[in-house]
Amino acid sequence: MSTTKLDLTGGPVHPAVSALRPLGPHEITVNGGFWGDRQELNARVVLSHCEQWMERIGWTSNFDRAADGTVSGAHAGIEFVDSEVYKLLEAMAWELGRQHDESLDGRYRSLVARVVAAQEPDGYVHTSFGRPGQRARYSDLEWGHELYCFGHLLQAAVARLRSGHDDGLVGAGRRLADHLWQEFGPDGRNAVCGHPEIEVALAEFGRATGEPRYLELARLFVERRGTGTLKPIEWGQEYFQDEVPVRQAHVLRGHAVRALYLASGALDVATDQGDEELARAVELQWENTVARRTYITGGMGSHHQDEAFGSDYELPPDRAYSETCAGIASVMLSWRLLLRTGDPKYADLMERTLLNNILASPRQDGRGFFYTNTLHQRVEGNEPNSDEINARALATLRAPWFEVSCCPTNVARTLASVHLYFATATDDALQIHQYGDADIRTQLQSAGHLSVTMRTSYPDEGRIDVVVADAPVVSAGISLRVPAWAKEGATLHVNGEEHDPHQEVRRIFQPGDTLTLSLPMRPRVIRPHPHIDAVRGTVAVERGPLVLCLESVDLPSGTVNDVSFDPEAPISEAFDSTRIVVEPAHAGHPAWPYSEVTDARRKEHWTVNLVPYYSWGNRGPSTMRVWIPVKTPSS
Amino acid sequence: MSTTKLDLTGGPVHPAVSALRPLGPHEITVNGGFWGDRQELNARVVLSHCEQWMERIGWTSNFDRAADGTVSGAHAGIEFVDSEVYKLLEAMAWELGRQHDESLDGRYRSLVARVVAAQEPDGYVHTSFGRPGQRARYSDLEWGHELYCFGHLLQAAVARLRSGHDDGLVGAGRRLADHLWQEFGPDGRNAVCGHPEIEVALAEFGRATGEPRYLELARLFVERRGTGTLKPIEWGQEYFQDEVPVRQAHVLRGHAVRALYLASGALDVATDQGDEELARAVELQWENTVARRTYITGGMGSHHQDEAFGSDYELPPDRAYSETCAGIASVMLSWRLLLRTGDPKYADLMERTLLNNILASPRQDGRGFFYTNTLHQRVEGNEPNSDEINARALATLRAPWFEVSCCPTNVARTLASVHLYFATATDDALQIHQYGDADIRTQLQSAGHLSVTMRTSYPDEGRIDVVVADAPVVSAGISLRVPAWAKEGATLHVNGEEHDPHQEVRRIFQPGDTLTLSLPMRPRVIRPHPHIDAVRGTVAVERGPLVLCLESVDLPSGTVNDVSFDPEAPISEAFDSTRIVVEPAHAGHPAWPYSEVTDARRKEHWTVNLVPYYSWGNRGPSTMRVWIPVKTPSS
Repeated sequence: MSTTKLDLTGGPVHPAVSALRPLGPHEITVNGGFWGDRQELNARVVLSHCEQWMERIGWTSNFDRAADGTVSGAHAGIEFVDSEVYKLLEAMAWELGRQHDESLDGRYRSLVARVVAAQEPDGYVHTSFGRPGQRARYSDLEWGHELYCFGHLLQAAVARLRSGHDDGLVGAGRRLADHLWQEFGPDGRNAVCGHPEIEVALAEFGRATGEPRYLELARLFVERRGTGTLKPIEWGQEYFQDEVPVRQAHVLRGHAVRALYLASGALDVATDQGDEELARAVELQWENTVARRTYITGGMGSHHQDEAFGSDYELPPDRAYSETCAGIASVMLSWRLLLRTGDPKYADLMERTLLNNILASPRQDGRGFFYTNTLHQRVEGNEPNSDEINARALATLRAPWFEVSCCPTNVARTLASVHLYFATATDDALQIHQYGDADIRTQLQSAGHLSVTMRTSYPDEGRIDVVVADAPVVSAGISLRVPAWAKEGATLHVNGEEHDPHQEVRRIFQPGDTLTLSLPMRPRVIRPHPHIDAVRGTVAVERGPLVLCLESVDLPSGTVNDVSFDPEAPISEAFDSTRIVVEPAHAGHPAWPYSEVTDARRKEHWTVNLVPYYSWGNRGPSTMRVWIPVKTPSS
Repeated sequence: MSTTKLDLTGGPVHPAVSALRPLGPHEITVNGGFWGDRQELNARVVLSHCEQWMERIGWTSNFDRAADGTVSGAHAGIEFVDSEVYKLLEAMAWELGRQHDESLDGRYRSLVARVVAAQEPDGYVHTSFGRPGQRARYSDLEWGHELYCFGHLLQAAVARLRSGHDDGLVGAGRRLADHLWQEFGPDGRNAVCGHPEIEVALAEFGRATGEPRYLELARLFVERRGTGTLKPIEWGQEYFQDEVPVRQAHVLRGHAVRALYLASGALDVATDQGDEELARAVELQWENTVARRTYITGGMGSHHQDEAFGSDYELPPDRAYSETCAGIASVMLSWRLLLRTGDPKYADLMERTLLNNILASPRQDGRGFFYTNTLHQRVEGNEPNSDEINARALATLRAPWFEVSCCPTNVARTLASVHLYFATATDDALQIHQYGDADIRTQLQSAGHLSVTMRTSYPDEGRIDVVVADAPVVSAGISLRVPAWAKEGATLHVNGEEHDPHQEVRRIFQPGDTLTLSLPMRPRVIRPHPHIDAVRGTVAVERGPLVLCLESVDLPSGTVNDVSFDPEAPISEAFDSTRIVVEPAHAGHPAWPYSEVTDARRKEHWTVNLVPYYSWGNRGPSTMRVWIPVKTPSS
């Protein structure tokens, strides 16, 4: 048992060295506003929604049955449902770190006790493997997801540690990680898990506990990946990134969540071990993936079949898989890269992905979720029964729960910890990366205590006020990210005086000092790269950090499949309402849809509302599109 | 055992009543030319390729092991590999009907004997089910494919009967069909197979043997479909068309091959039983599917995940599944509709699908096959090892064999019988639907014997000569199909005299009389319907019945992902070579592929060859596209 001093700061990630230091739960509080509302919904609804579903369908009681020896033949759900319980525990831990709640605290402790009771004496804990009548431990590394589940247990333990508690699940995590060191360490088997996750989890658990063996084991898993230890499968070894070593790959490929979790873990290993080659490989993979394999929403993964990245520029809007969990994994990777390098492009992508991919998943009421996030809904989805488990691939509106239900709990843990992505510190400066109503207070290592309050109606409006509450007596810096889309037109005022928005504000701050960043909110007409075949001849509209969309409930025709847009026509704009002019196409349904002549079209004009993409599908069944066909000269 | 007189005419389909009478193997012979070359390749290479693969990997010897009781635990391949042996037997039977070959005859008889030896006393024959250590018969109707396999046995028996032999496999078919009558007939279980096929097979086997119970059982299976007898699956009941009765459906949906086989069987039942409502439902399904869910190549099925039709107008070229077997199933359905109605639109789609979808599957050497037929290959495929079984979903060039290897044997049976789609007869007239070098001789019921010889370089050239060899002494008719694309510009000359090409030629024919149809072969620039989002802003080029494509081996840049096409520029044209002018786009790879500004592009012009789509991928790894981006005004 380790007795090293615990690192109680840093949120989900705290590298040994980094350009920027992450802030911990005690350093940032969100107070209402856009993100505060969502964190409250998460606390009030989403957590208990997940808890109740897993209780009802037996995923939590798998642990009880494992503890009392009755789980064989009576296991509920597929073989990686343990991970959903762990992600819920992680979400609860972050939520308890955000604000204490007696009831939640009790539920958390009780659930942890049930998990810990199922742990075997040697540290192994999994409800699907290893007992008489079950498959043997580690007998199906390709598909068994054992280490994937362990990773989520360890991440839940990290959340508990970083919230200031070294109790129940943390101890279980230590026993489990020690067991893994025995089984898969330098003297153990040369193997990896088919679903990366243990790498990133072990690295952080190592950081949070101060136990170097855990980081070393993460390194071993990263290095073994790509050496062909997994058996071939139909979709090729790239499905689980086992076709080429991480440090030799140039782009993310295969199953998107797997690829992004692996890259996150590889970067953690590279950062803490000073492995510049490996870190540069991950940076390059991010660059090429963002340039060629990412949806405008930040969504990643084009294939339904294997949940995979497709080829470069293969980004079909209507068959976008763009899994919620892949968006979350992308944010995890970008956050690590931001901490490492300080480059705001990573925070830009995080913002895009949080607002336009991840936030699209939960329904307004917090009781339904998109698993995949299409950019074009061709036919109206069905409103799923709130009592039924859903198959992920069906064209429904947001569903309450899934057979593979990774997304709801992943959304829960992300919402409960999203404020930890808002800001970082250096020795004598504070960097604000994401905007929302929040109090930030931190000890700058060389300057002293700095505390600020941020107030904004962002992302609906472009003004962000940061008011200094407490300041060091010496010179300190505060910088506010200017998103790439706001490069032209952003202004920054400090106590009413203009300041270069792209420069840090550095001075001896006084309480009451106010930094006001104004970002240009005019709607922008966005064209896709010509290599993105699937959206040729269309445009999207963005406003501020939000990708907008056209939803059929706002159209007289009731369908988005039959309109075109004149990008020369003026876009009218007001708070929360961007309106464009579209024309119905009225192309009819000929007997054969390919011909030498172009259809004549009827002239008609509708002025229609665009809505934020993340909000679509909250007004009943609808069709929707992000990319709107551009009127051609002949039409 | 039935003792009814055998129907020895009619090829794969011979309805009890129909507008057009199909011709049998003794009535049509292909002699060289485009189709003759392919039938020879099939006879010489494809049949033995399939035979040798199945021998090597144990799919044929499953039957030996079933016969000697050793197959349990030693079964080779997935649970429906029996069907591949049956499709090979069907192909062999048609080939033997086309021309006798001593060696093939011996191999056929020997293979039949091995199958028959595995049949159980009650008529059941399946190598994967029903023995100790195997799953029980009919215990997994959703996925077991038992009746699907039986259907292919019965179709192979039909091929043998229609080639004039009532031997080995035909007897096995009778015993099997009688068993099915017991198990699934009016007094049997209310169930259907997860993969339709038994319906179309039983109907035809009933026609070929004259046994009405088999058609009645086909009817029962068709009527039960859509009543929810199959257990729900992730992709929804429409995957196997069990969500709505056939007669209530308006479009084909779900798994494409399943949907098309089912529709074919339903039409057979409707035709022979005078069920106009059911027939009209199938016609409507065909119409809506062709108008909204069919690729320009005739390919059907947009989804890799569930091998399914997508929504209306969801036709991505790069993720086209467009399975070879779905094309074959589409030809089966269209042929039945053509026989029923005489409407040439069905022959048009057959031609399109045969030339541009099915023929794309086999490699020039007959030893490799495409399972799926993409319309846009973004990255160069790998040349698969000629020794290795392939997974169907990987981006490879044509592969020798697959784990699910339905396509090679389906291609083989289609090529061996393709000449039977060339022509039909009525009481006193001959209708020629497909063009190729062939001799056709038939007894017109009221007019007498008519025999003609067809000579043509079609589809490369547009001239087709039909010379009368023998003619009845009374007036008779000959009609030649004018494809829809040739409506304007087709000419017909009879002995040098102009004749309306859209009218039947009717007269007292003399030996030597010559009908010359000339179809306009200028390349046509084809635009997609505006609802087909995935190919907006592109055009395809067709020449005659062939869809052309751009292949990277013909481009200076070596990639098709970076060109645009000026549809106003002249298309130059010569025998087998259509050339267009394209411009490279040179759009670069920006860090983020969505922006307010359009890239400037370099001006450069290349004159490049287009090649027939079916021929692509025969010159080594390449990228390819059917739909070519149109130069925009700004570019």
